[in-house]
Amino acid sequence: MDEFELIRRFFSRDANAGDVVVGVGDDGALLRPTPGTDQVHVIDTLVEGVHFPANISAADIGYRVVAVNLSDIAAMGAMPRWMTLALTLWDKDEQWVEGFADGLYAAAGAHNVALVGGDTTQGDSVVATVHLTGEVEQGEALLRSGAQVGDTVYVTGTVGDAAAGLSLLQSGVTDVGLVQRFLRPEARIEQGRELRGRAHAVIDISDGLVADLGKLAAASGVGAEIDMSKLPLSAALLARYDRGSAEQLALTGGDDYELCFTAPADAVADLDGITAIGVVTEGDRIVCRRNDEIVEVDASGYRHFS
Amino acid sequence: MDEFELIRRFFSRDANAGDVVVGVGDDGALLRPTPGTDQVHVIDTLVEGVHFPANISAADIGYRVVAVNLSDIAAMGAMPRWMTLALTLWDKDEQWVEGFADGLYAAAGAHNVALVGGDTTQGDSVVATVHLTGEVEQGEALLRSGAQVGDTVYVTGTVGDAAAGLSLLQSGVTDVGLVQRFLRPEARIEQGRELRGRAHAVIDISDGLVADLGKLAAASGVGAEIDMSKLPLSAALLARYDRGSAEQLALTGGDDYELCFTAPADAVADLDGITAIGVVTEGDRIVCRRNDEIVEVDASGYRHFS
Repeated sequence: MDEFELIRRFFSRDANAGDVVVGVGDDGALLRPTPGTDQVHVIDTLVEGVHFPANISAADIGYRVVAVNLSDIAAMGAMPRWMTLALTLWDKDEQWVEGFADGLYAAAGAHNVALVGGDTTQGDSVVATVHLTGEVEQGEALLRSGAQVGDTVYVTGTVGDAAAGLSLLQSGVTDVGLVQRFLRPEARIEQGRELRGRAHAVIDISDGLVADLGKLAAASGVGAEIDMSKLPLSAALLARYDRGSAEQLALTGGDDYELCFTAPADAVADLDGITAIGVVTEGDRIVCRRNDEIVEVDASGYRHFS
Repeated sequence: MDEFELIRRFFSRDANAGDVVVGVGDDGALLRPTPGTDQVHVIDTLVEGVHFPANISAADIGYRVVAVNLSDIAAMGAMPRWMTLALTLWDKDEQWVEGFADGLYAAAGAHNVALVGGDTTQGDSVVATVHLTGEVEQGEALLRSGAQVGDTVYVTGTVGDAAAGLSLLQSGVTDVGLVQRFLRPEARIEQGRELRGRAHAVIDISDGLVADLGKLAAASGVGAEIDMSKLPLSAALLARYDRGSAEQLALTGGDDYELCFTAPADAVADLDGITAIGVVTEGDRIVCRRNDEIVEVDASGYRHFS
């Protein structure tokens, strides 16, 4: 199967919809932006053996490479619109590509994102890159840089589940909910939209809560204190790990793709599915507190090339 | 050197300029589209050992991954604006990354393209993907699909040089102009812009003249006939190859990144740097003619996974 046939068969499902003037098949996609919006452009790559274990399914990889990009769009309060795919494969197994496409479209379809173009190449291992374009009303984008001293620090959902899931997956367990949290993260698009005009600063949690809150704080020129007793830990996590281990996963485990944000408490009182976990402080440190005790946490998170 | 340091040092040169509201450093780039324009989105990947010989410089790879995307933007008559980079490396050699960045910025800077975001990952070999966004006045984009029977077929510049250059490069010759044509293709942005309102159909020549004209013809539901005596062959090409070999390179060699287009002859009479090479015909075949003789050409061009 050659490249053109591959693209036509598996990656042409919905390329001509909405504001897609021309989708897959010309030199590029032709798209019509919505007047009055700014655009958010994000790009993320998954590499076999680095970002996912070799034993996860093609469909999970396809889903995941879209989901991690959707999460960045969510963190800026934007609506995802269009994506392009660069897929490097180590061979030409049709079943694999079909599975990958199924996962990719499952993640994209949940948010009406159209795949409008791509490039398929051959290489030594699987490298999947997605570029995603979102739109947000001009002036309403959420940045990392607006946190103010005295803001409350919040997270959506629960944290630590994905890192637990990855650990389980690596030990051969595949059939529990925690593993699904790793394999099929759900980008918080709707919650990101709700935070426009309310949150002062937002980031998505990909490298770990402390690491990502640290980036938000650095961009804002502030510090933050996390009250460890308030961390939202799932029942599934606490069923498998003692409290201390669960807290460690919640603070330093990556891949949750929840949103971490800061806001005045009265600005988000009516929002569901969020938990206040701390406060924005002066300085430049991220401090974790249990009762009156400062707890040291390895805050390095996950960094490539480190 | 970790990922953040790598990005900050080598890929943050001009990310906050023009209509870039927020560049590198947040969850995504925040960009402001020009009112009244459509966007062209393209994405292209270069894989070490597949798209370039292992012995070409990091700077040439960085230049090339931008140039091939610029060429797609040119083929649609758009102005290139913003790009994002996904770079997978096999190790963390700083000199290599700096060289790559130099080449990348050389290609982008020539057309005022801003690098607004990226993702750097570790893998088994070099895989470089660039997504490029262009803008074109609404309704003025050039497509592959508008060729009409009786149109003249044109190409810009000269053809066959890049394929000759690649062949020379693979045999160890590095210091001649033909090799530069392969290593440093110049996207025909200005000529693409001039073709708006004149050309009926446009494609850029990446896989070879016959193969790419074939795609244009298929998209337009027509055939085409090439007069081989009219192929624009450079003096450099003819100095190294006999006429027959030069014609073969011109027809089937890839990587020229010239534009091939069809137009009524009177619509482009005032344009420089183009050569009429044939005519659009009924049917669905690409025919090459020398005097009154039909010449068979292997028209498959370069296809991945074939």
